Amino acid sequence: MDNFEYCNPTRVFFGKGQIAAIDTQIPREAKVLLTYGGGSIKRNGTYAQVKAALGGRKVVEFGGIEPNPAFETMLKGVDLARAEKVDFVLAVGGGSVVDGSKFLSGAVFYEGDPWEIVLTRASVVKKTLPLGAVLTLPATGTEMNGNAVVTRRATKDKLGMASPLFFPRFSVLDPELTYSLPPRQIANGVVDAFVHTMEQYMTYPARGSVQDRFAEGVLLTLIEEGPKTLAHPTDYDSRANMMWAATMALCGILRVGMPGDWASHGIGHELTALYGMDHGQTLAVVLPGVLAEYRAAKHDKLLQYARRVWGESGSDEAAVDGAIARTRAFFESLGVKTTLAGYGLGADAIPAVVEQLRRHNRLTLGEGDMIDLDGVTRILKRCL
Amino acid sequence: MDNFEYCNPTRVFFGKGQIAAIDTQIPREAKVLLTYGGGSIKRNGTYAQVKAALGGRKVVEFGGIEPNPAFETMLKGVDLARAEKVDFVLAVGGGSVVDGSKFLSGAVFYEGDPWEIVLTRASVVKKTLPLGAVLTLPATGTEMNGNAVVTRRATKDKLGMASPLFFPRFSVLDPELTYSLPPRQIANGVVDAFVHTMEQYMTYPARGSVQDRFAEGVLLTLIEEGPKTLAHPTDYDSRANMMWAATMALCGILRVGMPGDWASHGIGHELTALYGMDHGQTLAVVLPGVLAEYRAAKHDKLLQYARRVWGESGSDEAAVDGAIARTRAFFESLGVKTTLAGYGLGADAIPAVVEQLRRHNRLTLGEGDMIDLDGVTRILKRCL
Repeated sequence: MDNFEYCNPTRVFFGKGQIAAIDTQIPREAKVLLTYGGGSIKRNGTYAQVKAALGGRKVVEFGGIEPNPAFETMLKGVDLARAEKVDFVLAVGGGSVVDGSKFLSGAVFYEGDPWEIVLTRASVVKKTLPLGAVLTLPATGTEMNGNAVVTRRATKDKLGMASPLFFPRFSVLDPELTYSLPPRQIANGVVDAFVHTMEQYMTYPARGSVQDRFAEGVLLTLIEEGPKTLAHPTDYDSRANMMWAATMALCGILRVGMPGDWASHGIGHELTALYGMDHGQTLAVVLPGVLAEYRAAKHDKLLQYARRVWGESGSDEAAVDGAIARTRAFFESLGVKTTLAGYGLGADAIPAVVEQLRRHNRLTLGEGDMIDLDGVTRILKRCL
Repeated sequence: MDNFEYCNPTRVFFGKGQIAAIDTQIPREAKVLLTYGGGSIKRNGTYAQVKAALGGRKVVEFGGIEPNPAFETMLKGVDLARAEKVDFVLAVGGGSVVDGSKFLSGAVFYEGDPWEIVLTRASVVKKTLPLGAVLTLPATGTEMNGNAVVTRRATKDKLGMASPLFFPRFSVLDPELTYSLPPRQIANGVVDAFVHTMEQYMTYPARGSVQDRFAEGVLLTLIEEGPKTLAHPTDYDSRANMMWAATMALCGILRVGMPGDWASHGIGHELTALYGMDHGQTLAVVLPGVLAEYRAAKHDKLLQYARRVWGESGSDEAAVDGAIARTRAFFESLGVKTTLAGYGLGADAIPAVVEQLRRHNRLTLGEGDMIDLDGVTRILKRCL
């Protein structure tokens, strides 16, 4: 196990009616920038609950944050936050709204070109507005970590960053707020949380026993509860389990002291930037190809995954084959297609993705930089 | 799943040489109260490392904190902290040193009778000295939670308390610092962490899928790594896994949204207060009896435990029997005896424990107050 430092200061309020807790977490005199997406929060009642919880506080609204939040959009929010001199950011929405708002919370105080925040993976961020979140889409884990991803539309750059200052002060997770989500978004969320876990778990054996067991626990929960919550969206416990699994998947507890991989995300981000595929869709396509690429190098961990997560009991080789096939079948069972063809893309997408990676100077990906651009090509050829 | 609020702000520095991180976590101008136990930290080099990390800071020492820290002892530390006007408490030791120091950190500012802190389970604590910990004995989980237990020697009262203000600001967990521990203390630590997990896990089915899986992960880790780290004390990874498992067992992540039990601890504390048994020893005696007591009421969860943790594959009833027997055998395999007789106690201890519970007004214990004092008698009769 490697040395590590771990601190996750986000205060989580989980359960029915927890939006009311906002009132205890934001200073009464604060001027609040309320950020949100396309307006679904107004249709499903979340907005009204949030406004009620905010009581008499001054509120400035910034809506219209799109999926894969645009750098260009968020700069408008930065201008608004500066002009209105807000004291607190309250992000109400899914991962995109929260991620965009994290970027905004740092950009407000940054005096240089705000794109530098992205290019430095947020290392230049020294001060942020305090931020709270009301999560309406379980998927990305952003509600309890310091990560954010934004996309520059003009150049099709989708890039991630992280800062200890990006942890929300608090997050409200009420499973009931997610009942009205379309199945596609829930399915994407299950895939996203699953692949987040796999990026941390599918490493060389690193003797992190608790970390491995916790990761397997998240995977097993998603396998059990994902299909249930799709079939029965208002089964509270099932949705609650899926929601908490997605949070735990990327709160940092799975990766302490362990190496990580993140090759699937590296490739997937380019598919979203180039072709507008949902984040979860890109991961469902790429992960099975990545697992096959690692078949020899990470054989022992793939076998552990096969035995413990999928209960594969055959020979070692058959078990690994079975685990990769069942991973793909699981995503398909959720209604998330696992081939590029499923999204109308052909073989010409492959050199385009490789070119994007080259342009972003990502010439190698994955644990130990094991996957070069030829490897990316091999992976994507498996996903046609 | 029940509603919950969760926040664990402790910053953990885990791994070799992490004592050096102290220098980044305590203000340079702080006057530090350095608390410790019987002096083993001076013999094994930990003290020297800590002093080096503290650099030129002013340090006041308070040693001699005993196992099951005495209220009476800690009051002397409170007097010292007040007289010396210290700004920070650095606890270097095992759970007893850290627990006693947590109590001290609150008692310094408490103007009433300090026993009120214990009697109110710390609800009267409104301000504490900031506290950091260097853990030298993996067991109690106090390094990453807001719990503390102290014992009033004069009246044989061993009582627990909890406060959000008791979370350490930081904790250093270096597995190498624990290499020189006697096997008895490591074995006790494995049992302690195991039973902490069981107190949170062995509930009525509450549909906390991630929580159950995480708890099973901690249990499986302790079952796998406990014997290994006893046999090979300087196998870094094994000790690291055992240490991290003990921290995760009681950092709060296992219990969110779930009921708890804590009957084994309730009974065990009285055995320690009356007869001076090690905390881990009391739990090893009591838990198997408690599980048997719950055989009907918590049958489904016991069966889940049998299948998932112990891999019991027989009939339901045989599996439950097997799991209880294997739990007891596991403790014995670590060298921790599981009968009162093993500690020189006979049947006369039973009414004495019952009388202590009555005196502490603990007329019922466990989830849903299911175990009354007759139940305690039945449990202890199984442990003779």
